[in-house]
Amino acid sequence: MATHKLLLLPGDGIGPEVMGQVEQIVAWFGKQGLASFEIEKGLVGGAAYDAHKQAISEGDMKLAQEADAVLFGAVGGPKWADVPYQHRPEAGLLRLRKDLGLFANLRPAICYPALASASSLKPEVVEGLDILIVRELTGGVYFGEPKEIVTLEDGSKRGVDTQLYTTPEIERIAQVAFELARTRRNKVSSAEKHNVMKTGVLWKQTVTALHAKDYADVELEHVLADNCAMQLVRWPKQYDVIVCDNLFGDILSDVAAMLTGSLGMLPSASLGAEDPATGKRKALYEPVHGSAPDIAGKGLANPIAMIGSFAMALRYSFGAGEAADRLEGAIADVLGSGTRTKDIAAPGANAVSTGEMGQAIIKAL
Amino acid sequence: MATHKLLLLPGDGIGPEVMGQVEQIVAWFGKQGLASFEIEKGLVGGAAYDAHKQAISEGDMKLAQEADAVLFGAVGGPKWADVPYQHRPEAGLLRLRKDLGLFANLRPAICYPALASASSLKPEVVEGLDILIVRELTGGVYFGEPKEIVTLEDGSKRGVDTQLYTTPEIERIAQVAFELARTRRNKVSSAEKHNVMKTGVLWKQTVTALHAKDYADVELEHVLADNCAMQLVRWPKQYDVIVCDNLFGDILSDVAAMLTGSLGMLPSASLGAEDPATGKRKALYEPVHGSAPDIAGKGLANPIAMIGSFAMALRYSFGAGEAADRLEGAIADVLGSGTRTKDIAAPGANAVSTGEMGQAIIKAL
Ligand SMILES: CC(C)[C@H](C(=O)O)[C@@H](O)C(=O)O
Ligand SMILES: CC(C)[C@H](C(=O)O)[C@@H](O)C(=O)O
Repeated sequence: MATHKLLLLPGDGIGPEVMGQVEQIVAWFGKQGLASFEIEKGLVGGAAYDAHKQAISEGDMKLAQEADAVLFGAVGGPKWADVPYQHRPEAGLLRLRKDLGLFANLRPAICYPALASASSLKPEVVEGLDILIVRELTGGVYFGEPKEIVTLEDGSKRGVDTQLYTTPEIERIAQVAFELARTRRNKVSSAEKHNVMKTGVLWKQTVTALHAKDYADVELEHVLADNCAMQLVRWPKQYDVIVCDNLFGDILSDVAAMLTGSLGMLPSASLGAEDPATGKRKALYEPVHGSAPDIAGKGLANPIAMIGSFAMALRYSFGAGEAADRLEGAIADVLGSGTRTKDIAAPGANAVSTGEMGQAIIKAL
Repeated sequence: MATHKLLLLPGDGIGPEVMGQVEQIVAWFGKQGLASFEIEKGLVGGAAYDAHKQAISEGDMKLAQEADAVLFGAVGGPKWADVPYQHRPEAGLLRLRKDLGLFANLRPAICYPALASASSLKPEVVEGLDILIVRELTGGVYFGEPKEIVTLEDGSKRGVDTQLYTTPEIERIAQVAFELARTRRNKVSSAEKHNVMKTGVLWKQTVTALHAKDYADVELEHVLADNCAMQLVRWPKQYDVIVCDNLFGDILSDVAAMLTGSLGMLPSASLGAEDPATGKRKALYEPVHGSAPDIAGKGLANPIAMIGSFAMALRYSFGAGEAADRLEGAIADVLGSGTRTKDIAAPGANAVSTGEMGQAIIKAL
């Protein structure tokens, strides 16, 4: 049995609490002899800044480069509101994404039947929802240069960000979307603003050409990003896989997440290119939710998004699809039996703690 | 009684139909002696391209410059999918916004009580919703240069768009938001992505400074644009006025519009700076909905967004707040009495035509 190198970066706020539950699940898989992990731990975000005066240390970056997968908790909080911009907690996450080349961010938005009524949308709109946002994660306005604030002669300032995409960058993310669509309902919706942005024009052209060349069997539609946001609210079940750039993906995936009424439940995977020599790809797994400083340390956090992120790691990094199914099944069972952390409990209903939820999932495994 | 110069640009698809209803209402106000209008008509979008091979002619641009207000229908449709990029229907709208200096786009999202059940959101989430998105409309990634697609040495292509904002551009739009908040519930939420974008950093700093200097009586909060999209779906009533840049405003206002379940009902105003000499400002009023080519020419379109846009013109361009109240009251009365066009009728229920809705509103005036 191969041993998988796992780097845990719990980060800030509720990050360490939810990561703690994953550690127990990792240990459980090890004890059962179902998988073997070699675990390292590091700091990221505010926690890293407190220790090293930077949002991730060179040593931890090296561990991330060597790991088969990184599990990432969450970063940020009011404590670090005034640290220098280049050291803000998010900088650690952005550096991991960029330096590991994690260009493909997969964000499933699944509405668990047991939780359909927790959504702000009508149950019939979200019941059974299962869509996947494939977001480009290492390009676009997040990383394009120039990216600066300059002071003009009259004392006013000008801020600049640069949205940049090349055809190879668009092709490789579209490829991921088409391949995944084939394992699902075989439909890709490509979202951009070609009516306003030249990167949108290039995006649409490139996706169209790739589709004609290699993926004509997959249904492809083009949708303007603003309309896509609107359609996600109106009737999200029209979608299967949505592919889009970094910034649109940031917003559309948050809208999609909120539809499910269970932000504390959604995992994500960020994947690099396959190394032709080893067949391996770098990967980072993180919950969609943030560090929630207001509830940190109180045992209130829902660990399911973090545990579900580990399930994605089993599937995409460790070739352990069955173990992933088993873990996801255990989560669904626990929800089906009515166990709820506070964020997903009905108002006034009993809720379990972070640790109790973790234990319930291990029991259901 | 001053005579107001009004330019009507019906555009494409359902644009001419809904504009037809406004013409009757304009005529009604004239006949009653309540206001006096001098009306010109022009072409924009695909209709202008068919006539002049450009999305708006120089002659019509001149009329727009001279008008006290422009009423704009909608542009675009499959017929013009292959026209050269610089002449695409949207180019007419973008040129009007830019050349008239219409930097402040006001998009109210109001959930009419009679229509709360038409939303995909639960009634308690949207009932009584009344928020206002103040979107910067002449800057940002819509107009920044470079904006191009270049072919690289290896034959691949690179697309570039440039997000640009200066402090004066941010100040003037924030000013509009703060002033409007004072006439409402006195709260401004400023949305950006300062954690990723330098324009976001400048946006946040500039809004904060202006607030401290001139608007400390208004409640100000900062929210990340992705979180704002999410919060709009979760609990939109937390907002009063949301101020944001051109691209975030495009998406957030579409999400907000969809919450109301009545996209066919939402008007918008785009305003320029006040001329210090005359006290006048250039203005364009348009429905939030598009040209809906699939239902064009069938008498199915809901004219309320277009009529409501004229009500905004009465209020913001013609100093006729009472007439605006009266027109908006007539719309609410007609809805209250159960009159519905197809888009807002319950499935299977009787619906009136575009013209019948227009007539009902005139009757209620
Ligand atoms: C924390 C922030 C930098 C990040 C982003 O904007 O990508 C977050 O919103 C996300 O979606 O993962
Ligand atoms: C038609 C298009 C250019 C426009 C925009 O992107 O601004 C539209 O979506 C809008 O919001 O008015």
